[in-house]
Amino acid sequence: MILGQNQYGKAESRVVRITRDGDTHHIKDLNVSVSLSGDMDDVHLSGSNTNVLTTDTTKNTVFAFAKERGIASAEQFGIHLARHFVTSQETIRTARIRIEEYAWQRIETAGPKRHSFVRENQETRTAQVTYDGARWQVVSGLKDLVVLNSTDSEFTGYVKDRYTTLPETRDRVLATQVHARWRYGWSADDPSGGNGHGHGNGHGGEGEAAVPDWDACYAAARGHLLGAFAETYSLSLQQTLYEMGSRVIDRLPEIDEIRLSLPNKHHFLVDLEPFGLKNDNEVYYAADRPYGLIEATVLRDGVRPAIPVDLTNLP
Amino acid sequence: MILGQNQYGKAESRVVRITRDGDTHHIKDLNVSVSLSGDMDDVHLSGSNTNVLTTDTTKNTVFAFAKERGIASAEQFGIHLARHFVTSQETIRTARIRIEEYAWQRIETAGPKRHSFVRENQETRTAQVTYDGARWQVVSGLKDLVVLNSTDSEFTGYVKDRYTTLPETRDRVLATQVHARWRYGWSADDPSGGNGHGHGNGHGGEGEAAVPDWDACYAAARGHLLGAFAETYSLSLQQTLYEMGSRVIDRLPEIDEIRLSLPNKHHFLVDLEPFGLKNDNEVYYAADRPYGLIEATVLRDGVRPAIPVDLTNLP
Amino acid sequence: MILGQNQYGKAESRVVRITRDGDTHHIKDLNVSVSLSGDMDDVHLSGSNTNVLTTDTTKNTVFAFAKERGIASAEQFGIHLARHFVTSQETIRTARIRIEEYAWQRIETAGPKRHSFVRENQETRTAQVTYDGARWQVVSGLKDLVVLNSTDSEFTGYVKDRYTTLPETRDRVLATQVHARWRYGWSADDPSGGNGHGHGNGHGGEGEAAVPDWDACYAAARGHLLGAFAETYSLSLQQTLYEMGSRVIDRLPEIDEIRLSLPNKHHFLVDLEPFGLKNDNEVYYAADRPYGLIEATVLRDGVRPAIPVDLTNLP
Amino acid sequence: MILGQNQYGKAESRVVRITRDGDTHHIKDLNVSVSLSGDMDDVHLSGSNTNVLTTDTTKNTVFAFAKERGIASAEQFGIHLARHFVTSQETIRTARIRIEEYAWQRIETAGPKRHSFVRENQETRTAQVTYDGARWQVVSGLKDLVVLNSTDSEFTGYVKDRYTTLPETRDRVLATQVHARWRYGWSADDPSGGNGHGHGNGHGGEGEAAVPDWDACYAAARGHLLGAFAETYSLSLQQTLYEMGSRVIDRLPEIDEIRLSLPNKHHFLVDLEPFGLKNDNEVYYAADRPYGLIEATVLRDGVRPAIPVDLTNLP
Repeated sequence: MILGQNQYGKAESRVVRITRDGDTHHIKDLNVSVSLSGDMDDVHLSGSNTNVLTTDTTKNTVFAFAKERGIASAEQFGIHLARHFVTSQETIRTARIRIEEYAWQRIETAGPKRHSFVRENQETRTAQVTYDGARWQVVSGLKDLVVLNSTDSEFTGYVKDRYTTLPETRDRVLATQVHARWRYGWSADDPSGGNGHGHGNGHGGEGEAAVPDWDACYAAARGHLLGAFAETYSLSLQQTLYEMGSRVIDRLPEIDEIRLSLPNKHHFLVDLEPFGLKNDNEVYYAADRPYGLIEATVLRDGVRPAIPVDLTNLP
Repeated sequence: MILGQNQYGKAESRVVRITRDGDTHHIKDLNVSVSLSGDMDDVHLSGSNTNVLTTDTTKNTVFAFAKERGIASAEQFGIHLARHFVTSQETIRTARIRIEEYAWQRIETAGPKRHSFVRENQETRTAQVTYDGARWQVVSGLKDLVVLNSTDSEFTGYVKDRYTTLPETRDRVLATQVHARWRYGWSADDPSGGNGHGHGNGHGGEGEAAVPDWDACYAAARGHLLGAFAETYSLSLQQTLYEMGSRVIDRLPEIDEIRLSLPNKHHFLVDLEPFGLKNDNEVYYAADRPYGLIEATVLRDGVRPAIPVDLTNLP
Repeated sequence: MILGQNQYGKAESRVVRITRDGDTHHIKDLNVSVSLSGDMDDVHLSGSNTNVLTTDTTKNTVFAFAKERGIASAEQFGIHLARHFVTSQETIRTARIRIEEYAWQRIETAGPKRHSFVRENQETRTAQVTYDGARWQVVSGLKDLVVLNSTDSEFTGYVKDRYTTLPETRDRVLATQVHARWRYGWSADDPSGGNGHGHGNGHGGEGEAAVPDWDACYAAARGHLLGAFAETYSLSLQQTLYEMGSRVIDRLPEIDEIRLSLPNKHHFLVDLEPFGLKNDNEVYYAADRPYGLIEATVLRDGVRPAIPVDLTNLP
Repeated sequence: MILGQNQYGKAESRVVRITRDGDTHHIKDLNVSVSLSGDMDDVHLSGSNTNVLTTDTTKNTVFAFAKERGIASAEQFGIHLARHFVTSQETIRTARIRIEEYAWQRIETAGPKRHSFVRENQETRTAQVTYDGARWQVVSGLKDLVVLNSTDSEFTGYVKDRYTTLPETRDRVLATQVHARWRYGWSADDPSGGNGHGHGNGHGGEGEAAVPDWDACYAAARGHLLGAFAETYSLSLQQTLYEMGSRVIDRLPEIDEIRLSLPNKHHFLVDLEPFGLKNDNEVYYAADRPYGLIEATVLRDGVRPAIPVDLTNLP
């Protein structure tokens, strides 16, 4: 019997950080999950906790760091945490910090006070930082961004076998719920301290890149995903996926790899002929299940893939 | 043994209506639930379906009406449906149409084509239309609109009994997930055909009011809820609730009654003292359960309440 | 402007009570929501908390009572809590306690120790206790109990209008997710102290009935709902609903009223003819949305209905 | 730019199969997700669907196979499907079938008819079958099985650092929601036709093992997980996890590897001292978030791990 890969930590610590700049407040709203691995044979085999930093302590650290280090960005906060666990605790070899970030929009009011917010809810931003004491891996992304084109999508020319009944179509609704993760090329500690802002020196060898500007990259990647989805005349969801992924790789040198998981949120044209009506691509039924699920990775030339194949485990 | 109140129909028909105005498309995305009642003793007592318009037919009607009548607004669509069921089927006395509407935002692109959308997801708009052949009741609303004030909230001076441990506070985060339903005064059929636009003739006797402009009223009510939440210095969530509800009643003569259900989404100040840190209202833990739940109705003078007490059945 | 009905309290306190009987442990697992109403104008209109027992205190009371009073049953626990809030706090006129109970099954092991459990998860038991200082109302129930008959269900003879396309069927799958609430006739305080066990003196006038044996009634009602569902040859889901409800009223004199909400969980026969196969009621597609929703109340003769019409607010 | 790993197919086809054995009916209730990969560059790069078997066709195949092959078990059904896709379609190199199975319990009635069922809901059974034309990989499992020990769990002797505040305890509630996946050693096609029943010839070399009896193995693995959880005096959740995993590997020669993901469903002892009460391990608060998350693999000696590290992607 062998103990294989193992990891542990506190999942889903919901930390909200308010920063007060006079009457103007700022808010960061994160869901932080810590996962540690290292010399953990004893606790599994004998129950000895000698090497175990408790999950309760990892949670406390998240809240304490929100005060001590602040939250410049989800990625930067994850870097602070991962470095702390690996460098402060001898038995921990690798730390992986997963973060969901929820965006808030300011509620504008007449007076000078600016401390009111409404949650945006459009998509969830994600960040995963892994550190083994030597190299960094940062995989950022988003999920639950729902998009729809009401035309410029067709689906024809596919294989027909004994079980095929789907009619071809030259004009359909194409809708999906974007789940994307992209991996940054940066992997080596920034000698200047990892301040979260790019240095403008371009894309060097792997790991020697400057620390990306995480927020700017997120905004740009999100924009390219939306733009490529909207501007592609689609012959298949796979083609749209590739256009979305390749545009991100093409435009953002900081990013080496992107994985997209796109459920085809089917909008079926309703048959209105029994009612003596013609449905000229006007009335659709939005189906729940089953759904097509299209997933692929797009990589920069010469890069080895590192993002897992399944972004979701459903089902 | 007596058969009491009963109702039936197809729930959650997900209809998406695309309207093409040249290269510019428009989208309406609804979840429609039909509930009918009337002379239905036979089907319960003997299983005879002689008086039963099937739920499948009510679903078909939703999709057919999306083509035949279009979807000017959720409320107007519900009015068309409710009138149809009550007037076309002798055994149906009352029809209630419940609708959830999901908002979409246009994705702007360079070219002339405008057929791409991203789902907003911020809140869900709701509408409920009830018709008994004589009078209308329209209750509109929204749910899952999450708001937060990072200051200007205190909580003091409450009852202390044997089980009280909560310390008073002069500065706390106040956050809630707004669930609101408001009832319009309009209840009589519009002689001009119920076109969904107000007539500007002010607020007459109950039921003689002009048909409200549903979309304008929704936008205004939503804005007043956000505004009152943001601008109220809060001594209790009840006070904030009343400010929100009364502002809607005060500013919108079309609305006679509003019910608000506000879960107190607790943000607890994290105790950082064990780590030698001072938490100056900066770091909060966002809790899930349990939560305070504050609910109340605000009414125009002289109006009788008609919105049910529990907007949600949880738990 | 008038403040209408209002209520507040802590929702969803998750209390787990372990009772140790030597090596044999017992577990009660509840989700308790407190809702109080009374003289609460001040807190809404001026923010004064003078009359407010905080929601935090109501939560503390739940946990303290789990120790002080124990949890004989969800209903009995709710009675203790409701009486406490109404009698101990002058400004509180009415208390409503809603409880969800999660059942656990013992994991049998070889040794004498009996402290291991696996959650049953089949349905959620519910209880709602309301007290105004004079009379009690207890509404118990269950939700999410999914049942299916694979035959003995037909659907024919219904109204056909312009929008009807559904073919009649003499043999279909009938499945639903039972959501039931039943109201007990008992409403007057038991002079012997409300010990939760019936007195065997039959069903007297309303409110003079003995305190029901809550657990026995729950088990019996659940059994009758399952039995009536299974044994009814169904001509419509309405007929099945009435058989289920009337059996409970008929067999359980403690219960005066029952409300059932039965979504028709459609199982559509898959058309296999395109593949040269005959589907002899063997292969079904289990659909999610839309679904028929059938709801009705069954009452004992001479009883006035008191359970709200909508057991769920979805959608 | 490189297209990396990609896969596609129809997710979540909800197939229910009824088998009639006279008056006694049997039911199988599955949620089937198909994922195919192979020569799919064209559809991504140019939108050509020449090599694409549509996701609609993969769904049709699921329903047709439920008729043609029946559903002996989730695993056997997955084997039929995977073999079909890989052998019938030249461009498909690998098929992965993921299945969730929902268990139903018979409702016993007086008469001879046996066609009524109630859904068990306790856990969800899972099966994943992967086939590349040469070798099979079958990973079965379960999720959402919630278990609790009310004593025989302690937690002491762990690392204390600056951020540690957790007090040690000698008696606590230990509860978790078991998510397990186990991989069978069988990987070579059964010359006798893959009938799903073991041959009793013991555990040969990898891939030469007999086809396991899937249902018997499932029941045995589930029983061992429950048994080991209940019978282990726990010094840490890691130790309990290892006991659970190693018991499965030890007792079931058909299984080579198991991965467990165990969220620590914290039950915190409520501090009743402010109310003058002593909490003698009787009253607990069941918390939602955050939660410890303990994950590990246990392997048979000499076996290489193949189950992914993250069984869930939350968060």
